Amino acid sequence: MESASSAPGALPCYVALSQLLGLSVVAMTGAWLGVYRGGIAWESALQFNVHPLCMVIGLIFLQGDALLVHRVFRKEPKRTTKIVHGLLHVFAFVIALVGLVAVFDYHKKKGYPDLYSLHSWCGLLVFILYLVQWLVGFGFFLFPGASFSLRSRYRPQHVFLGAAIFLLSVGTALLGLKEALLFQLGTRYGAFVPEGVLANALGLLLAGFAAVVLYILTRAAWQRPARAEEQALSMDFKTLTEGDSPGSQ
Amino acid sequence: MESASSAPGALPCYVALSQLLGLSVVAMTGAWLGVYRGGIAWESALQFNVHPLCMVIGLIFLQGDALLVHRVFRKEPKRTTKIVHGLLHVFAFVIALVGLVAVFDYHKKKGYPDLYSLHSWCGLLVFILYLVQWLVGFGFFLFPGASFSLRSRYRPQHVFLGAAIFLLSVGTALLGLKEALLFQLGTRYGAFVPEGVLANALGLLLAGFAAVVLYILTRAAWQRPARAEEQALSMDFKTLTEGDSPGSQ
Repeated sequence: MESASSAPGALPCYVALSQLLGLSVVAMTGAWLGVYRGGIAWESALQFNVHPLCMVIGLIFLQGDALLVHRVFRKEPKRTTKIVHGLLHVFAFVIALVGLVAVFDYHKKKGYPDLYSLHSWCGLLVFILYLVQWLVGFGFFLFPGASFSLRSRYRPQHVFLGAAIFLLSVGTALLGLKEALLFQLGTRYGAFVPEGVLANALGLLLAGFAAVVLYILTRAAWQRPARAEEQALSMDFKTLTEGDSPGSQ
Repeated sequence: MESASSAPGALPCYVALSQLLGLSVVAMTGAWLGVYRGGIAWESALQFNVHPLCMVIGLIFLQGDALLVHRVFRKEPKRTTKIVHGLLHVFAFVIALVGLVAVFDYHKKKGYPDLYSLHSWCGLLVFILYLVQWLVGFGFFLFPGASFSLRSRYRPQHVFLGAAIFLLSVGTALLGLKEALLFQLGTRYGAFVPEGVLANALGLLLAGFAAVVLYILTRAAWQRPARAEEQALSMDFKTLTEGDSPGSQ
């Protein structure tokens, strides 16, 4: 029994809201770095600013959108949506990798220590989990070796871990934002200076984007409907020779 | 189709893990405040330390446990579990309120500004949402006025908002922890001083507790099974006179 706000017809409204919030997060990060931090560049002290921008585009916006692919393209062939989902995660990872290189390179040039803060520990955990999740996901869902039964057993774990990594990414972004504010503003943060207020609003937008993506992901009525022909197609030759059937455990 | 790790028999193991993590979070917060921050007291500069301890006990540990009540007590009468769930949330709220008063009182005595940081904005949002969620939840599920149909429609929203508030509480705790570290340690944080390492480990434990609670909440096989007699019992006189039946929308 689903409420009116999770009826299939409401899905496009929630997807639109998620995109509005996600794009606002990217735009506001750009505005924050442009107006208060001098913009971005690779070969200068502005190299640090590449880090938050890449992380927000890759590990927040693109990662969030990758999670929504199976909900948005509910009527397209499953293989196509899987490829779009996997590719979006690749784009997200590559952009985030640029952001990671930027901050390590900046720290090296400035002689700052690496990986001492909670932000960096959480960020490192996100990177490791993201890579493992992508490789295991590829092995189970795109590589033609896994049986239908094995895929069905792994799917709930894949969805949960995907959502958890996304939420940890958002938490890590909030920690990074806070760190950047305290380092730069110090006690001026307490005087409600415009940069602090803008960055706080950005933090709330980040949390809002995460909430809407999570809401869309967790509505049972918005899940991709299982189709008999897809189940049959996903049983590859190996499965058939092993005598595994869609209903078997 | 559920994987082996979400079979009904695995639930006690995950609940035990959640309690181990939750109690470790409380103990480690106490250790951090005791060893590195001089302990807690109301009438001194140590009043600030009441804030993180109360918030971690109330809005992290007790709130997380309140969310698990309907999964842990799956075979007890539904009304009993509802009352335990509601009461745990009341305890959590009252303890958190003491923590809130402590920090406002401390700020007032020291002449520090209030509500300027992202941590405080998120915390305020948590408090408002928590109160609204409790009152609306009480109105729908414990007050005998709502029909079975209305309860069924609201339930998914209540569960989602509950999980979202819990996750925002954990995010807010991480922001607060980071703030406390940067204010106190400054550049020493980058020298891997023991307090910084302990607090980072506490941050990861907080994220781990949140992940396990969320995992338990989102397993379909671990949800409380709907029982015909409970459905009948929850149809009160008002519902019957309105002609509302368990299957109606």
